[in-house]
Amino acid sequence: MAVPPVDPALAAARTAVRAQLADLHPDDLVLVACSGGPDSVALAAVTSSEARRVGRSVRSRGYAVRAGAVVVDHALQPGSARVAQRAAEQCRGLGLDPVVVRRVEVRQGSDGLEAAARDARYAALEEIAATTGAAAVLLGHTLDDQAEQVLLGLARGSGTRSLAGMPARRAVFRRPLLGLRRAHTERVCAVVGIDPWIDPTNDGTAAGAPLRSRVRDRLLPVLGDVLGPGAVEALARSADLLRDDADLLDLLAADLLATARSAVDPADVDPAETRVPEGPAAVVLDVTPLAEAPAALRRRALRAAALETGCPAGTTTARHVDALDALVVRWRGQGEVHLPGGARGVRACGRLVLRSGGRPGAAPATHHEE
Amino acid sequence: MAVPPVDPALAAARTAVRAQLADLHPDDLVLVACSGGPDSVALAAVTSSEARRVGRSVRSRGYAVRAGAVVVDHALQPGSARVAQRAAEQCRGLGLDPVVVRRVEVRQGSDGLEAAARDARYAALEEIAATTGAAAVLLGHTLDDQAEQVLLGLARGSGTRSLAGMPARRAVFRRPLLGLRRAHTERVCAVVGIDPWIDPTNDGTAAGAPLRSRVRDRLLPVLGDVLGPGAVEALARSADLLRDDADLLDLLAADLLATARSAVDPADVDPAETRVPEGPAAVVLDVTPLAEAPAALRRRALRAAALETGCPAGTTTARHVDALDALVVRWRGQGEVHLPGGARGVRACGRLVLRSGGRPGAAPATHHEE
Repeated sequence: MAVPPVDPALAAARTAVRAQLADLHPDDLVLVACSGGPDSVALAAVTSSEARRVGRSVRSRGYAVRAGAVVVDHALQPGSARVAQRAAEQCRGLGLDPVVVRRVEVRQGSDGLEAAARDARYAALEEIAATTGAAAVLLGHTLDDQAEQVLLGLARGSGTRSLAGMPARRAVFRRPLLGLRRAHTERVCAVVGIDPWIDPTNDGTAAGAPLRSRVRDRLLPVLGDVLGPGAVEALARSADLLRDDADLLDLLAADLLATARSAVDPADVDPAETRVPEGPAAVVLDVTPLAEAPAALRRRALRAAALETGCPAGTTTARHVDALDALVVRWRGQGEVHLPGGARGVRACGRLVLRSGGRPGAAPATHHEE
Repeated sequence: MAVPPVDPALAAARTAVRAQLADLHPDDLVLVACSGGPDSVALAAVTSSEARRVGRSVRSRGYAVRAGAVVVDHALQPGSARVAQRAAEQCRGLGLDPVVVRRVEVRQGSDGLEAAARDARYAALEEIAATTGAAAVLLGHTLDDQAEQVLLGLARGSGTRSLAGMPARRAVFRRPLLGLRRAHTERVCAVVGIDPWIDPTNDGTAAGAPLRSRVRDRLLPVLGDVLGPGAVEALARSADLLRDDADLLDLLAADLLATARSAVDPADVDPAETRVPEGPAAVVLDVTPLAEAPAALRRRALRAAALETGCPAGTTTARHVDALDALVVRWRGQGEVHLPGGARGVRACGRLVLRSGGRPGAAPATHHEE
């Protein structure tokens, strides 16, 4: 009996999902984060079938893990509840169980609406993973998303971390499709016969389209055209290399920050002189270890200290870090540095003091790549 | 008497050149590398006037440095000698002295014709700087060149160093115009009344145009259009930050390479077992310190070792480094790794041995950003 050939896009998606499920145990629960769009619907379809044959090989029949889905309704557009219900029904139709629909409240913060929606989405996914005991949450990001992420980072001009894109795994999250193009996920939807939802407000060629959509629909095609067909893959490869760099440099900077902090004897800090306010959100650092460190580490340590005092990650730019850096290495008696969120930095008596703007309950910044 | 207002582009160019001349001593010689194009002709014009008033301020009349020019004729196009002579005459007309025209022979190497031309150009500039005793060679690269450099690095997908662009100073070279847009240098030419040479083969919108020209004329405009007017500046800022990172990581990787090398006792190396060839171009490394190091440093150390054995920098890609890396951290008895330039890497007895392809007189790779 002739076996019908498997579509190459479907085969690639299956291989990718299989690799990300391989370390799960029998009956573990894996959740697919599904928006109803082509990427996450394709991921839901492939996960549904691959979950039944984890570890399957020539010698082994494999075992099954449980596969469910989470649909987050950001409630930012009229009709979003209907879109979420449609996605949930598609997931149920694929045999996923449980399928959780979660409506979140997105409150515009200082980092913009897109960032607020992303934070709300990841918080909901983490909470549902915890309450359902899921071993992993699968996200539908593709190679195209990764390339967009790098270009958006370039546009911010904020260095290695913002160019480093999204990792294939972080905490409970996994991104099986990060090596596949978006055209592949659209093809998978067509092959398995599911009609994904196409967001009509997401057309990047329209006037006033969101930045990410413009990058996808207007910049990426020209990039591929000018730099060659491998440009998107090259962007993603750059992101992988930069992520390794960023991880190491963040680690070394955390060491530097700890050294600069521990060089200060708390008993030695005169509140009047250094203007340290009451409260836990002041960071007091000895400038000597900072000044002796390479710029790449010093700047990261200063940024980390700023975030620790409550500066929002998205609005704390290279210019703010420059101003703090000047207090350390170009000290000529300058005054306070004003930081986002009302925080301030000041140098006195060989110490750099960063104090919180006093936003009540400012949460420490979490890092979500997309 | 009313002072006529200075054109803002000219004022910005003057300030930028003045800053790069400030540390020169009276009668030092500075050479402008001039191609005859708008950037370097503008640089020649501004350097000519600023060289006469170094250190000038409200309190000081300043002093003069000598300003000359070098025109490199790459002899790659018919009529290139005429273009070079025209540029030299313009430099002489600006009062620059000496003005040296140097015809170089560009031999296509494994890294491509553009790279070979660049290497020949920098070698000629270094040699003329040495023979004339010049304290500095000024290059006309602008913010646009820097952004192009970052985009070309992205297209290669080869990580932080290739995204790090050009430094404002390296060795004898200085790039005063790195903060100015190309439109500024064109404006400076118009204001001072010099007609720069526009290379007709350099139109990036033409079919078959060189990659760099396509990036400049087709990709950068869309980038600015999609990401916003500050995109070119943001690319350059990214390059600055990445350069700091790359410098530090290269330093740490050199330490790692030295450690891995010194962990090998030369008396302990059995030529038969480790297949170390005769000759100085073999690098023998202990895998243990490599395996324990973070990937970002290990990969850089392995790349540096490969270049040391004569692999050409331009063709030694992330894939080659991956293969060497697998010998260190994913060792399962695999065979020799073939590297560019005929070099090879092999693991035996806990050691990684890289041996030269035996190209006679293979020079160690030098690093020229543009």
